[in-house]
Amino acid sequence: MSMSRTSRSTERLVVIGGDAAGMSAASQARRLKGPDELEIVAFERGHFSSFSACGIPYWVGGDVATRDELIARTPEEHRARGIDLRMRTEVTEIDVAGGRVRARNVDSGAEAWTSYDKLVIATGARPIRPDLPGVDAPGVHGVQTLDDGQALLDTLAATKGRRAVVVGAGYIGVEMAEAMINRGYEVTVVNRGKEPMATLDPDMGRLVHGAMEGLGITMVNDAGVTKILTGDDGRVRAVGTDAAEYPADVVVLGIGVRPETALAKAAGLPLGEHAGLLTDLAMRVRGHENIWAGGDCVEVLDLVSGQERHIALGTHANKHGQVIGSNVAGGYATFPGVVGTAVSKVCDLEIARTGLREKDARRAGLQYVTVTIESTSRAGYYPNAAPMTVKMLAERRTGRLLGVQIVGREGAAKRVDIAAVALTARMTVEEMTALDLGYAPPFSPVWDPILVAARKAVAAVRKNAG
Amino acid sequence: MSMSRTSRSTERLVVIGGDAAGMSAASQARRLKGPDELEIVAFERGHFSSFSACGIPYWVGGDVATRDELIARTPEEHRARGIDLRMRTEVTEIDVAGGRVRARNVDSGAEAWTSYDKLVIATGARPIRPDLPGVDAPGVHGVQTLDDGQALLDTLAATKGRRAVVVGAGYIGVEMAEAMINRGYEVTVVNRGKEPMATLDPDMGRLVHGAMEGLGITMVNDAGVTKILTGDDGRVRAVGTDAAEYPADVVVLGIGVRPETALAKAAGLPLGEHAGLLTDLAMRVRGHENIWAGGDCVEVLDLVSGQERHIALGTHANKHGQVIGSNVAGGYATFPGVVGTAVSKVCDLEIARTGLREKDARRAGLQYVTVTIESTSRAGYYPNAAPMTVKMLAERRTGRLLGVQIVGREGAAKRVDIAAVALTARMTVEEMTALDLGYAPPFSPVWDPILVAARKAVAAVRKNAG
Repeated sequence: MSMSRTSRSTERLVVIGGDAAGMSAASQARRLKGPDELEIVAFERGHFSSFSACGIPYWVGGDVATRDELIARTPEEHRARGIDLRMRTEVTEIDVAGGRVRARNVDSGAEAWTSYDKLVIATGARPIRPDLPGVDAPGVHGVQTLDDGQALLDTLAATKGRRAVVVGAGYIGVEMAEAMINRGYEVTVVNRGKEPMATLDPDMGRLVHGAMEGLGITMVNDAGVTKILTGDDGRVRAVGTDAAEYPADVVVLGIGVRPETALAKAAGLPLGEHAGLLTDLAMRVRGHENIWAGGDCVEVLDLVSGQERHIALGTHANKHGQVIGSNVAGGYATFPGVVGTAVSKVCDLEIARTGLREKDARRAGLQYVTVTIESTSRAGYYPNAAPMTVKMLAERRTGRLLGVQIVGREGAAKRVDIAAVALTARMTVEEMTALDLGYAPPFSPVWDPILVAARKAVAAVRKNAG
Repeated sequence: MSMSRTSRSTERLVVIGGDAAGMSAASQARRLKGPDELEIVAFERGHFSSFSACGIPYWVGGDVATRDELIARTPEEHRARGIDLRMRTEVTEIDVAGGRVRARNVDSGAEAWTSYDKLVIATGARPIRPDLPGVDAPGVHGVQTLDDGQALLDTLAATKGRRAVVVGAGYIGVEMAEAMINRGYEVTVVNRGKEPMATLDPDMGRLVHGAMEGLGITMVNDAGVTKILTGDDGRVRAVGTDAAEYPADVVVLGIGVRPETALAKAAGLPLGEHAGLLTDLAMRVRGHENIWAGGDCVEVLDLVSGQERHIALGTHANKHGQVIGSNVAGGYATFPGVVGTAVSKVCDLEIARTGLREKDARRAGLQYVTVTIESTSRAGYYPNAAPMTVKMLAERRTGRLLGVQIVGREGAAKRVDIAAVALTARMTVEEMTALDLGYAPPFSPVWDPILVAARKAVAAVRKNAG
């Protein structure tokens, strides 16, 4: 069975995935082309469209009161804008040669083919769910979707015990640790790495480690989870490693995500070494004139290392969607790549990075110097001047900025944007020392912490000039 | 009378001015060259060295407890580092041909010539003190020096009335308005311009106006002060304009500053159209091999307009000092220029700008488009997401970023740094839309306000493509 076109002169755009990238693409295309020129059909297998997955930890933690606040645009709102968004409908096959997709209604099981002139793949990412005994036991939760968040909240409401174990200490792990602290839980974080936040170098991760312990979180590093232990009632009772067991009334899996590209792979579309779809700068799937992809299912070019990376982040997904929507509608836009900026917090501890860590630089074949400095968010004499540590990497000999990591308190995280722009512009650390950054005592020391780090990096580059 | 050299092989550096630029230069030179290679003599006419003038409003307002917290390094500390800093000693003449300066002890009146091999002029700026009847009356205060700050605090302690009039509504004016509010005063700001903060375009100044009134400050715009009225006791009793009188128990002059270059002018050194010294990129006074100048007494190159400006700001003075100190000691450094970044606040209102205002762009011969957007400091659903307004100027046709102005609450001001780096890198607003800025719900909406403005600016540039 194949759905027929409404008219030969109307092109049909099919979008797979109703979240940030897919619906941004659909919305942008709709802004540029009316329904008589472009029909837009979007398939979403879940219950929700255009929601902020990044907001889930704050909803679980109670900072955001209701689920609906995380929904940027409902299916009804999309439909009112002329997008035929079909919820609870999962695409099960892409027929590239035939220019059609097969979709199945998740509730009824009914299947149908829909032909497309242009296709956007925005299938997102799926959480890494370790293949452990007991991982499906009641009380063990992922936090990828709004349904996941609701299920976790339901568990919290129904559970008397106050011991939470978070598995993983990356962004999701530390944010969920904060959420559970805010809910009044006794929190243990079990982490495979030497230090939390493997997105930082270990010396900076150590600062996060110390601060988390200061917040009353029990940090267990160097610990691979081998099993989830259950009680007589079948519910989770502990998380087990080879060395120990950590009692748990609730377990949150925050191990990270992988590109959801099984569909693309089966269709023979090109995947990269991180299993994400490979696109050109216009976000078109390489080698395919009429297929675009964006969001958490693609790999992006890291402008600093020159290599592809997989980064699941709503801000990239939205940009991809904008670019795709413009190009699909006959406009022109590109996504040049990323520099790897990420910010997060655990209670009042702020964590930020951009560019390359030491091991990224080595992997990219770059030689580098590193410096680490201590400074404050405001002039030292101004009230609430908060300490921050800034680590900076610069390329050996050229002095080009390679990366910045910041751990501090209020005012620390967003300072990383200065370095993100400098990386994009391929500035040297010497050029950075002259940057005209905003200065007034309530906002910065007379030398902004980024400038202090840059000055020290200049000296390190000179010292290693050989 | 001329002081003799200690030895022919030791050069002598003379520094005029013991504050940020002068003492940074002296300190950096000392780091690079020991006392056997370079003798350093510095003259300061005041009581203090290396103090933060920018911090005075916060000391007066009570956020900073004591004067000493504003002193980065005392005369004794400088001397311990091998700098012959002579306090209360005013240089009264520079004899360029003879390579010497005449200095007078302010207290004893004794004068002497000191010869130099290298000279650094860091004479700073002097506050604009309008030539008004009554301006020298008790109760009328400037806030340029620590002595000024102490005198004002003494007046506040001795005055019963709680009515303060601040003359001027630039950075100093609004910061002093906040200080007087914090001290419990009823504050009136009398401002010559149409709106406060003439460093912003009037449409953005209007937002500051509204916010200041919301803080209980009485804003009087379009009002030139013509006289200071005094009572029978000789003390100030009101500030008068042509139209009205504003009762005052204390008056704070916050009208801005001019380069202090009378000495340089008398010596025949080159001054620019803003009466500041003109230097090359190494901060050497133009046409003079062995004289450098920096800080509030020089003009700086505005990298966006290509013209010289006068900007009195501690962060520039410190950079100048570093550059001068390196060059004086035989190293190499340059100060490439500024983009005009400035941040300030009035209570919880944050104000920032970088690059060109509309009238700056016109004066520079640039045609431009402007856009203004409203956004928030955090994801809209996150607690305490604070509103902010961002205005962006981009060059017509090329789309090059020309300037950004921000008025908002917490998290607004330092976002201007993103634009400051983009201006330095001569980015277009289209390039800016792809910037990889830090995103997480507690720190930014999924599109950072700067990106929202850049996207709208791209559309405006396209619309005005002709």
